[in-house]
Amino acid sequence: MTDQRHDARYQARGASAGKSEVHAAITAQSAGLFPGAFCKIVPDDLTGDPDHALVVHADGAGTKSALAYLAWREGFPIGVWRGIAQDSLVMNLDDCACIGATGPFLVSNTIGRNARRIPGTVVAEIVAGYQAVCDVLAGEGITCRMTGGETADVGDLVRTAICDSTVVCRIRRDAVIDASRIAPGDILVGFSSTGRARWETTDNAGIGSNGLTGARHDLFGGGYRETYPETAAPETSPDLVYCGPYRVGDALPGGGGLSVGAAALAPTRTYLPLIARLRDAVPAADLHGLIHCSGGGQAKIVKFGRPGNRYIKDAPVPVPPLFAAIREATGMSWAEMYGTYNMGWRLEAAVAPAAVAACLDAAAACGIGAQVVGRVAAGAGQAEVVLTTPDGTAVYR
Amino acid sequence: MTDQRHDARYQARGASAGKSEVHAAITAQSAGLFPGAFCKIVPDDLTGDPDHALVVHADGAGTKSALAYLAWREGFPIGVWRGIAQDSLVMNLDDCACIGATGPFLVSNTIGRNARRIPGTVVAEIVAGYQAVCDVLAGEGITCRMTGGETADVGDLVRTAICDSTVVCRIRRDAVIDASRIAPGDILVGFSSTGRARWETTDNAGIGSNGLTGARHDLFGGGYRETYPETAAPETSPDLVYCGPYRVGDALPGGGGLSVGAAALAPTRTYLPLIARLRDAVPAADLHGLIHCSGGGQAKIVKFGRPGNRYIKDAPVPVPPLFAAIREATGMSWAEMYGTYNMGWRLEAAVAPAAVAACLDAAAACGIGAQVVGRVAAGAGQAEVVLTTPDGTAVYR
Repeated sequence: MTDQRHDARYQARGASAGKSEVHAAITAQSAGLFPGAFCKIVPDDLTGDPDHALVVHADGAGTKSALAYLAWREGFPIGVWRGIAQDSLVMNLDDCACIGATGPFLVSNTIGRNARRIPGTVVAEIVAGYQAVCDVLAGEGITCRMTGGETADVGDLVRTAICDSTVVCRIRRDAVIDASRIAPGDILVGFSSTGRARWETTDNAGIGSNGLTGARHDLFGGGYRETYPETAAPETSPDLVYCGPYRVGDALPGGGGLSVGAAALAPTRTYLPLIARLRDAVPAADLHGLIHCSGGGQAKIVKFGRPGNRYIKDAPVPVPPLFAAIREATGMSWAEMYGTYNMGWRLEAAVAPAAVAACLDAAAACGIGAQVVGRVAAGAGQAEVVLTTPDGTAVYR
Repeated sequence: MTDQRHDARYQARGASAGKSEVHAAITAQSAGLFPGAFCKIVPDDLTGDPDHALVVHADGAGTKSALAYLAWREGFPIGVWRGIAQDSLVMNLDDCACIGATGPFLVSNTIGRNARRIPGTVVAEIVAGYQAVCDVLAGEGITCRMTGGETADVGDLVRTAICDSTVVCRIRRDAVIDASRIAPGDILVGFSSTGRARWETTDNAGIGSNGLTGARHDLFGGGYRETYPETAAPETSPDLVYCGPYRVGDALPGGGGLSVGAAALAPTRTYLPLIARLRDAVPAADLHGLIHCSGGGQAKIVKFGRPGNRYIKDAPVPVPPLFAAIREATGMSWAEMYGTYNMGWRLEAAVAPAAVAACLDAAAACGIGAQVVGRVAAGAGQAEVVLTTPDGTAVYR
């Protein structure tokens, strides 16, 4: 990305979209059995079976829990905390699903809380939220079982609450979707992050669970810096803390009555039932890659696929209202927005042209919007995403 | 426990030894296949094999990382962070080992950091620390594999760094050590948490990774409250923050030259190679329970075993210097100390009398001190621990 201004703004808030420093710290670790796959896949040491592999995958809701806390304190129902559990779990599940794992999944969770800010009733909501996701998936024929967890009272470490989870699953090695197979000629199908999937009970504003540090501080203001200092790092310059135009209950422009707070807290949609359907509907030879467009947004795919791939995305999904509001509030460039947020599709498939219709059909059966967003071409050097929107063209490497 | 004074002190610091509120929040969760076992054991959904079971277990280093941060800032080598990884991982592994699991283990870890306080070099040390434990265990014939992890920059949530991990293992159901079998007539063997196990390179002060919020604030002072406000919850009353007599580099009384900081940061010893040896040396019918004396210290066993068991502990291990220093600094009663810290043995076995000699032999072969610390008697009502020390007798229910 060439726009460094907002990356500096990210870093000034103690977050980063790229995490190059962290990647440098873990380079000594093995890349696993399928180095080009969407998540790390390891041998099945539990059984020793050479035909199978395991994924043990950790992720969390990130700073979205700080927004849940703030909204809850501002009068949102305590149930907003269930959404945080869903964020934590789905960020994991959908990563695993991108390598073709469709269960059974086993889940453990950790909650680190400041007990003076987060009572047991909130812990109970978070735990219930994990179970609720499992229940929804059960209704879709997918097994996801909570195995337990750990709640630690660590107020000396945590300002409010941090919610992480770990997912374990097993997959036949010959069933792995290995994103290194994404190749020139593939079509990119984007699956909407908004609307209402068949397994959702309300419309989803689409943000998922990344980029929330920036979105929160740039969307919201109204004195939150003074009222809820426990939701911001004291090291951050005050002019970057809750410097936005909205209070959490304010209406989202173009949001059909949804509040900005509810939109930003929309629980991360799981695409798992759709991915299970795609596995059935698309021949394995045609399903080359699935990308969970979380951190890094629409630039994420550049880390996958054959070397030198040129990802031409020239038919993006119309920008959903929440992302338009974030763009407006942050003053970020469109290029930066697409390099941070999913901007309307949090899952994309790279498939052979013959498989496009099946992808669109599968999405329709799930109540999820889908469209061809681009294609894969051969490039000359480093892999790149060339994104064209009504606002211009940006290149990500 | 009848002494409520220090429990109040715990709560005033936002920690708790008992976590009754959290337990209330998760009562709806299933207890698993062996409700009386030391950790939750679930069906092996990954393979569907009815003869096997799985454990997916989460824990972390708790607030010990705040002490590592402080000591590192005070000039301790950056390698103290490796110990935090060991704390996080061993708190998990040793829980799993108490049900008889001896590997292979798969590990995922999460680091939530405030990037302004915790640079990538610290992240690298933590990651290396996890691998170092795996390497030591490999030398003991135990497979423990890192599968990856997630480092999140969440300064709005985390003051310094929080380090958690999740361990996955598989065990034959007929090999589970089910602590519900602990019964009257059993002998309690305690395994020292101090000294130097065969797989350790330095002497261990024995504290493990629980009770560190209290120990840290009551042991250390010297202006740390003002110098490192990022290591304490601002909600805590200032007179409870770093109100102790020591600086981290001060000599531990009776510690043979060890500093108080190094003693309190002693990486949690893993008993795993010892437990593997116990499994070989003691007939399964005689090995009724293994208890990891972490949170709840020497009162922990009261939650396990047959209803009404009376755990008579009348031959405790001599109090190690670090615990004596904590006792002195906190003004806690001995009863409270034993109900919080391990006080010298972080693992105990409940075995048939015929198996005692084998336990002692196994410990000796590992370089770990061991002794009979008590026995199990039949009681009339609620299970209880009756602990007799040179300072008196305390009862825990």
